[in-house]
Amino acid sequence: MKAVIVTIGDELLIGQVIDTNSVFIGQELEAIGCSVLEKVAISDTIEVITNTINRYQNQVDLVVLTGGLGPTKDDVTKKTLAHYFNDELVFNDEVYLHVKKLIEGYYNRPITEMNRQQAYVPSNCTVLFNEVGTAPGMLMVKEQTTFVSLPGVPYEMKYLVTEKLLPYIKEQFKLEAIVHKTVLTVGIGESLLAEKIEKWEDSLQLLNIHLAYLPQFGLVRLRLSKTGSSVDEIEAEIINKTSELQLLIPEFFIGITNADSLFNEVVLLLKQSGLTIATAESCTGGSIAQKLTSVEGSSGYFKGSAVTYATESKVNILGIQQQTIDTFSVVSEEVAREMALGAKRIFKTDLAISTTGNAGPLKGDGDAEVGTVCMAFVFNDKVESFTFNFGQPRNKVIQAAVEKTWLILYKYLKNNQ
Amino acid sequence: MKAVIVTIGDELLIGQVIDTNSVFIGQELEAIGCSVLEKVAISDTIEVITNTINRYQNQVDLVVLTGGLGPTKDDVTKKTLAHYFNDELVFNDEVYLHVKKLIEGYYNRPITEMNRQQAYVPSNCTVLFNEVGTAPGMLMVKEQTTFVSLPGVPYEMKYLVTEKLLPYIKEQFKLEAIVHKTVLTVGIGESLLAEKIEKWEDSLQLLNIHLAYLPQFGLVRLRLSKTGSSVDEIEAEIINKTSELQLLIPEFFIGITNADSLFNEVVLLLKQSGLTIATAESCTGGSIAQKLTSVEGSSGYFKGSAVTYATESKVNILGIQQQTIDTFSVVSEEVAREMALGAKRIFKTDLAISTTGNAGPLKGDGDAEVGTVCMAFVFNDKVESFTFNFGQPRNKVIQAAVEKTWLILYKYLKNNQ
Repeated sequence: MKAVIVTIGDELLIGQVIDTNSVFIGQELEAIGCSVLEKVAISDTIEVITNTINRYQNQVDLVVLTGGLGPTKDDVTKKTLAHYFNDELVFNDEVYLHVKKLIEGYYNRPITEMNRQQAYVPSNCTVLFNEVGTAPGMLMVKEQTTFVSLPGVPYEMKYLVTEKLLPYIKEQFKLEAIVHKTVLTVGIGESLLAEKIEKWEDSLQLLNIHLAYLPQFGLVRLRLSKTGSSVDEIEAEIINKTSELQLLIPEFFIGITNADSLFNEVVLLLKQSGLTIATAESCTGGSIAQKLTSVEGSSGYFKGSAVTYATESKVNILGIQQQTIDTFSVVSEEVAREMALGAKRIFKTDLAISTTGNAGPLKGDGDAEVGTVCMAFVFNDKVESFTFNFGQPRNKVIQAAVEKTWLILYKYLKNNQ
Repeated sequence: MKAVIVTIGDELLIGQVIDTNSVFIGQELEAIGCSVLEKVAISDTIEVITNTINRYQNQVDLVVLTGGLGPTKDDVTKKTLAHYFNDELVFNDEVYLHVKKLIEGYYNRPITEMNRQQAYVPSNCTVLFNEVGTAPGMLMVKEQTTFVSLPGVPYEMKYLVTEKLLPYIKEQFKLEAIVHKTVLTVGIGESLLAEKIEKWEDSLQLLNIHLAYLPQFGLVRLRLSKTGSSVDEIEAEIINKTSELQLLIPEFFIGITNADSLFNEVVLLLKQSGLTIATAESCTGGSIAQKLTSVEGSSGYFKGSAVTYATESKVNILGIQQQTIDTFSVVSEEVAREMALGAKRIFKTDLAISTTGNAGPLKGDGDAEVGTVCMAFVFNDKVESFTFNFGQPRNKVIQAAVEKTWLILYKYLKNNQ
């Protein structure tokens, strides 16, 4: 089964908004074995939307559209769809009652004429009732292709995908099994790795296993994918090939990451370990804490972070010795070590990790090269420290330091399972 | 001038990676008056890439492709382009010397055969020399359309866009002037706002000014866009219409935001004010600090954050009275007030803002409803506090609290300019 995702709105084209809707839809569709052939972002005009859906008519099984269903005049998707299906918009009592209830109950104000307009839907569409917002989802079939229109508000879109669209697809389509496994390698660059595993890579082709290299700071993920009729069979095949890979590159092979990223692996390991953690962040400015707390249940292991951006606050809050700063400079492994120990002490945790560096573009306190980051990690009263240079620009330095955090934690937690 | 952005790689389609490359390219192209008609993400196979570029041949002036230029076998863009242009890949000495210098110098290892392959480029292409990575950019013209292929690594892509592509476009194309202005409104929902300004909105159409509604938590941004021959004339026209708007909705009209978001406005105002700020964050987990430090020069005004996720650390680090927690619960305006005062005290700042809430999905310490967030803001020894319920899911609650922070700061800084 093949799908295309269409996101509608000029804000996507002029770079005013980052599109995360299609990321979610792509994940969900792939997970049930529906291949996403293309994702396209387009302008919200009748002509452009019509041309785009026409382009995919009978080329794919499913076209998922998001955006362009709000109550205001710049939202034209609904009209366009009705026209494309030679249909007309009719007032739907059930949708109206729902909108009315939501507006009067949740927003506590009278329903407006524009809200009322949201109850008009194409007469031949199947309404996907939206329990969390005022714009209904709509599903229409023309010849070989099913078209689904969803609102662009992320949590409304997510609700309709999970609760309405996926069950519909599973019922209506015969889905091929698809398996993706991602192997994490560390300490070897993309091109050297590719040379080392060249023959193994060739052997994948014979099995119709697709390999993709996903390089990140200091690590390369290898994604193996295959479609077929049986999930179990494909999984066994892929796991067999990853065992071969492990023998080829034992020093760089970390393991199969079930989750999408190293961070998710770290969260799983932290939860299993029962250990608690705190951070002391300077150049990362709270990014490590922010990521750790982005997942539910984080209060089980994360106790807090001292984001001591100013040098003075490193002394006042974390108890760094002024002498250490004067002797080694604020960007130094010595300061990083005292920061990690300080965080462990004030938050009373088992583990702590710290960052102090110069993210740039200008030199800050101390005279470390732009891009330099010192980090320290405390466990069992032992401290390890590191110095990196992540170059520029600023956001790359911050992101690289955050990624290093997951790598340091991953190695420790994996070795102490 | 019309452009299409094509991003290449399965990781974009299966939702493994969020595409920020096309966001950047979209912003840069729009800023110089080049309209982005479509953005499309596709698989990295020869057939799909060929079909896609063929689809846009002579339909647009410029096709910008990113991704698929790495050294490994899953990267096929270069071969596909050579084939599409009936060209062949030839070894380019200048590119080779550049790759060699970079590998041997920066990575300090011998050049591999795969790196050497990166020096092959189509014989008729214009090489866009990449000073920050090993994959060169390539530019080729066929009939009415210019095709540009850039690497997918974000900072390499950004370098080539800024330093090579934009200057080329400015030189080769006659660009139409384009102006976008975004008006910020606060305190009124999208549909009510649309009813209030309906006639004004109609009047925009007569001037060919396009209006888009961009709703966010608690605010609606209105984007006015127009293309034409003179930036000055269009700007004058749009500013004239925004003045009319201000008279229509004085109580909701905040102003024209030059920057893309309220956050950028807050950063500008903070810099101008010379005031310093700290945060005390519980449910936002460092997200406010992370955002404040994401921009260069933030050490000028941001001193630090106490991310006191555990209740105990609120007492130990911020000096919250245990009695306040016992009496009012940890999610209360009283605790938020003490947190903000504590942050102001320990970081020695002029301003401080705090958050304590229950982001969900489960109830945490205290018994506040899931979605409840209390916030406090200190300035001039005055404290203001607020209680919100942002509903669910978790990430929406966190994001909404962060957006409220910018709104609170914006109002204060604007009124005290």
